[in-house]
Amino acid sequence: MRTAFIGLGVMGYPMAGFLSKAGHDMVVYNRTASKAKSWIRQFGGSSAATPAAAAEDADIVFCCVGNDNDVREVILGKTGVLNGISPGAVIVDHTTASATIAREIHVRAAEKAVGFLDAPVSGGQAGAENGQLAVMIGGDPDVFARAAPVIDSYAKAITHIGPTGSGQLAKMVNQICIAGIVQGLSEGLDFAERAGLDPAVVIESISNGAAQSWQMENRWQTMVDGEFDFGFAVDWMRKDLAIALEEARSNGARLEVTELVDQFYAEVQAMGGSRWDTSSLIARLKK
Amino acid sequence: MRTAFIGLGVMGYPMAGFLSKAGHDMVVYNRTASKAKSWIRQFGGSSAATPAAAAEDADIVFCCVGNDNDVREVILGKTGVLNGISPGAVIVDHTTASATIAREIHVRAAEKAVGFLDAPVSGGQAGAENGQLAVMIGGDPDVFARAAPVIDSYAKAITHIGPTGSGQLAKMVNQICIAGIVQGLSEGLDFAERAGLDPAVVIESISNGAAQSWQMENRWQTMVDGEFDFGFAVDWMRKDLAIALEEARSNGARLEVTELVDQFYAEVQAMGGSRWDTSSLIARLKK
Repeated sequence: MRTAFIGLGVMGYPMAGFLSKAGHDMVVYNRTASKAKSWIRQFGGSSAATPAAAAEDADIVFCCVGNDNDVREVILGKTGVLNGISPGAVIVDHTTASATIAREIHVRAAEKAVGFLDAPVSGGQAGAENGQLAVMIGGDPDVFARAAPVIDSYAKAITHIGPTGSGQLAKMVNQICIAGIVQGLSEGLDFAERAGLDPAVVIESISNGAAQSWQMENRWQTMVDGEFDFGFAVDWMRKDLAIALEEARSNGARLEVTELVDQFYAEVQAMGGSRWDTSSLIARLKK
Repeated sequence: MRTAFIGLGVMGYPMAGFLSKAGHDMVVYNRTASKAKSWIRQFGGSSAATPAAAAEDADIVFCCVGNDNDVREVILGKTGVLNGISPGAVIVDHTTASATIAREIHVRAAEKAVGFLDAPVSGGQAGAENGQLAVMIGGDPDVFARAAPVIDSYAKAITHIGPTGSGQLAKMVNQICIAGIVQGLSEGLDFAERAGLDPAVVIESISNGAAQSWQMENRWQTMVDGEFDFGFAVDWMRKDLAIALEEARSNGARLEVTELVDQFYAEVQAMGGSRWDTSSLIARLKK
């Protein structure tokens, strides 16, 4: 399959690598060209000067950029994917962005007989590097069916959630759940330490019951140790929560704790924690 | 072993049953005497007219009552356990109560050469009925060592957390974590439905990643279906959270979301949900 990949960041770089290893012909584009060069040195293929040029001969064009504005620019912009891509091709956007932009692109792509899937991922940098991402997809079933076998090269699970935008909305549900879990765990661990308990013993005793969570199992130790130099950055979490809160404004959901936790993350940013892992919510309780 | 059991509620009744099945000589006491009678019909043993009388010949006296006041009455009261129990015996309190009352009883028991363990459980009614409770224990190591093999008859895990009161404090950590998890999950599921997503599909796609929790796996379906007529009652959760919030006042922990969720549970009570499962937090978002 001829595939293009737009955006070789911490996620896109290894994802594109798995596509190359799976035998696809790759054309890559990255805003900072040096990164595209080093990717080609590692994986082969070629680079293009613009997203439009990268998309020209592609059957599938993947994007993984930063936010709504980036997506708008690389897909809908003057030198964007839609100005180069051929009818019948498919765009798969792995950026976590709004459902609104997904719907807008879906319409614009359909005008050129191009398929579009919103396909945010979870699993973080480690998931991307191990080819073990969970991919939540919104879009037409037939487009999904064509793209899924290709996406499979870096995924452990691919779910067709529903129509265009549904992938993004499912990702928001994921982040909303995480916000509550991490804050609860932070309050619990901080309480344990202030109460003079050994957190390791407490976690051992409660981690097989109703308080269990992935976050508890995988993050309690680093939270207690104050290590946050890894994982999913607070800046990205706030970007995702802003999308969820905006969406809630129109669908009527009351994201009471999510909104509060978003403000707590703002405090973590003010503490210098913009690049810290999401689990750093506990840091502001230690002050 | 000669054991006494004070408090044959939804938890104590089956727990005492497992002690009987394990071959211990049982004397039971329950405020409502008819329940003690039906327990004896089912399991044998005998009943006593007061906690003091039940404790008279016991090697270990178990309590499982409602709250601090109940614990105070059945252990420290005029006809309480400490007025009947023999030197060298042990009291194991399975009530979820404050660390403060645990420390007070520990001192008063020590004056009579009686051991004391605070030993709240998790696992709920089902865990009690299946003999699969997790038991968090505070108290002296030698007392713990004597009681643990007996407690084992209804436990899947017994953890010695630390000195007197530590069992209660660990249970609070458990409830604090649950408060955040259930609220986050409630907001996520409510958001999903308002966004027009199929919750089953969303949960399938996110329940193997960083948003995973016991609550998500075991409660999402009943939360979506609005079924709350089971599990751990809101009234009991509020009792436990009140203890945690009171403790936090003295140890300096900031239980920001826990405090908020406690107020949300007050709203659920006002909706008629006092006996609903903890997962009913989602119900107030549906209004």
